[in-house]
Amino acid sequence: MKKIAILGSTGSIGTQALDVVRQHPERFSVAALAAGQNIGLLAEQAREFKPRIVSVSTKELAENIKLQLPSEIQVTWGEEGAFAVATHPDATFVISAMVGSAGLAPTLAAIEAGKCIGLANKETLVTAGHIVMQKAKTRDVSVIPIDSEHSAIFQCLQGEDRRTIKRLIITASGGSFRDLSRDQLRNVTVEQALAHPNWSMGAKITIDSATMMNKGLEIIEAHWLFDLPYSKIDTILHKESIIHSMVEFTDRAVMAQLGTPDMRIPIQYALSYPERVPLETEPLDLVKISSLHFATLDFERYPCLRFAYEAGRIGGTMPTVLNAANEVAVARFLRKEIPFLAIEDTIAHVMAKHQVAEHPNLDEIFEADMWARQVATQYQPV
Amino acid sequence: MKKIAILGSTGSIGTQALDVVRQHPERFSVAALAAGQNIGLLAEQAREFKPRIVSVSTKELAENIKLQLPSEIQVTWGEEGAFAVATHPDATFVISAMVGSAGLAPTLAAIEAGKCIGLANKETLVTAGHIVMQKAKTRDVSVIPIDSEHSAIFQCLQGEDRRTIKRLIITASGGSFRDLSRDQLRNVTVEQALAHPNWSMGAKITIDSATMMNKGLEIIEAHWLFDLPYSKIDTILHKESIIHSMVEFTDRAVMAQLGTPDMRIPIQYALSYPERVPLETEPLDLVKISSLHFATLDFERYPCLRFAYEAGRIGGTMPTVLNAANEVAVARFLRKEIPFLAIEDTIAHVMAKHQVAEHPNLDEIFEADMWARQVATQYQPV
Repeated sequence: MKKIAILGSTGSIGTQALDVVRQHPERFSVAALAAGQNIGLLAEQAREFKPRIVSVSTKELAENIKLQLPSEIQVTWGEEGAFAVATHPDATFVISAMVGSAGLAPTLAAIEAGKCIGLANKETLVTAGHIVMQKAKTRDVSVIPIDSEHSAIFQCLQGEDRRTIKRLIITASGGSFRDLSRDQLRNVTVEQALAHPNWSMGAKITIDSATMMNKGLEIIEAHWLFDLPYSKIDTILHKESIIHSMVEFTDRAVMAQLGTPDMRIPIQYALSYPERVPLETEPLDLVKISSLHFATLDFERYPCLRFAYEAGRIGGTMPTVLNAANEVAVARFLRKEIPFLAIEDTIAHVMAKHQVAEHPNLDEIFEADMWARQVATQYQPV
Repeated sequence: MKKIAILGSTGSIGTQALDVVRQHPERFSVAALAAGQNIGLLAEQAREFKPRIVSVSTKELAENIKLQLPSEIQVTWGEEGAFAVATHPDATFVISAMVGSAGLAPTLAAIEAGKCIGLANKETLVTAGHIVMQKAKTRDVSVIPIDSEHSAIFQCLQGEDRRTIKRLIITASGGSFRDLSRDQLRNVTVEQALAHPNWSMGAKITIDSATMMNKGLEIIEAHWLFDLPYSKIDTILHKESIIHSMVEFTDRAVMAQLGTPDMRIPIQYALSYPERVPLETEPLDLVKISSLHFATLDFERYPCLRFAYEAGRIGGTMPTVLNAANEVAVARFLRKEIPFLAIEDTIAHVMAKHQVAEHPNLDEIFEADMWARQVATQYQPV
């Protein structure tokens, strides 16, 4: 029985992870759940999966949910609560699925506590990849990707010698606006941006898909997860999102993982790894899909992709700044404070102003993150 | 240094295998070569790769080639010659790439002698799969597929537990006539049939591609290679031949191997397995290819596929008979004795007349093979 803690249990990944647990009660159980504000759903989850502990964002919410739960479930809150979930002694596997850079600290705590990590939170590696992977190595802890692209690559690498990798080919759907020109992007609305053609995901990641920053963050994440230089990480536009990503080897054989756009497949793979177990889901029907398309991902069309490669290659605190500026800009776009294309402008502006600290420690990362958020918040699009 | 014997060195697979050896002189060398009648090319190969022994089909050819070679290269001929190549003590790896069922006996001899087999000869498993795989198991010898489809499946299975296979999905290009209706097939010529859209191969296999018998033989081969029931072996029409085959697992993840239509990739993989080594070849360019298509393979359009599933499921001597009838019919078509669609009629006729022997031994298999050839030769299309 694998006992699981979930950081972000009421989000898109969290709820799907619980569905995987629901399908395999003989194999997985839930030890601890951390959520933000959605205490209605968290209470439901807690009643169904009977964790030892739950955590919410504030003391008020904690007091509220406590009234809805049996007394044997411990209720905690805030940063301390997330840490208690991440390091709960019963859990051996922690799913890191909080949104944004808030996932970093509890994920590090889980690694420190020797938990195996199922990583859905990109920002953890984007902002502190060198620290996270080093700590995982020191603690001999596996970091198994849950993102569909990285899970695909991870699956392609089973049984392979990583020294024979020629390059990773990360596929990108192109997001909600893939058929629009840059000119047409000027006046797109929040509602249009939130309508992703293939995947049903949270708001932040859907906007990141439309700007292609999602792919940019995945490039940086892949760099750390698979310990590869950026020159060996490529992207390709593949609008059907059926091939989740590929690996080209030195013999020019290309391995790919395909599937329906069901995140439960990579979530379950992370949980069951190195085994596979049956999943009740629609099988992939390539005949019905009929054709798969491929095109180049243009750095002119998608500047966020270029920003990400630049930030990744510069290294130090720059990826943290890229990510923080993006988080603020996306939040501002979702609040309708700035237009869609100003997301890119914000990131370019903040990156241009940043004085990079090389080999930053966690404090320097948090400092750079705060600095970038401040500058991004104050940025006025022209 | 892996020392290699090649059965069928002047054929399409044989010459490409030698090109792989040529690219890796530090890793592979040639111990023995067997060819048929093309002594000009065999002499060239022998001078370049310096095997200890070569074999040709007849005594006359042997005497002829002997004059062209340095005296330290032993020259043999006929069945005995092929056996001497297959079992040469210097070789640890034998590439079985003779055309048709003639490859069976020397391949069995190589397995008996404890050689690892790179199998490009489909008929070996189609006609005597139960004997070959049993002997390979007893002698603890690996049989590594060289066919692009089976190599793809073999690659997809690395690092996987075979009990979690849901099904194999073997891709088929559809051959030279994939865009023709059955009516249009009535009057196609040998020259048209030999123009395969994707692969440059020998005449027999190119015709087998056009009738889809090639895929049929591959289904039976896959049954033996991967020890799976026919209900777990599916096919799909994929005209670009870029995805070489796929494996669907119980969690509905699908693994695929892709590549350019360069047979040196699977040949080299068999030789270098379990490692991969660099190969100088064009990389796969999915952007240039732009799209991949999929459709069902219709048993009405391609009766040979149905014949193969039927023969495989019936088992015993029936796959041998399917294969022998096909070999004769294809040869007759190539000699312009019968029209294209009479290939199918011949096979249906011979299968209908056959009295199946279950669990046949080698003698019974040879007997069934001879019987089927006789009946197929005498068959007069209506």
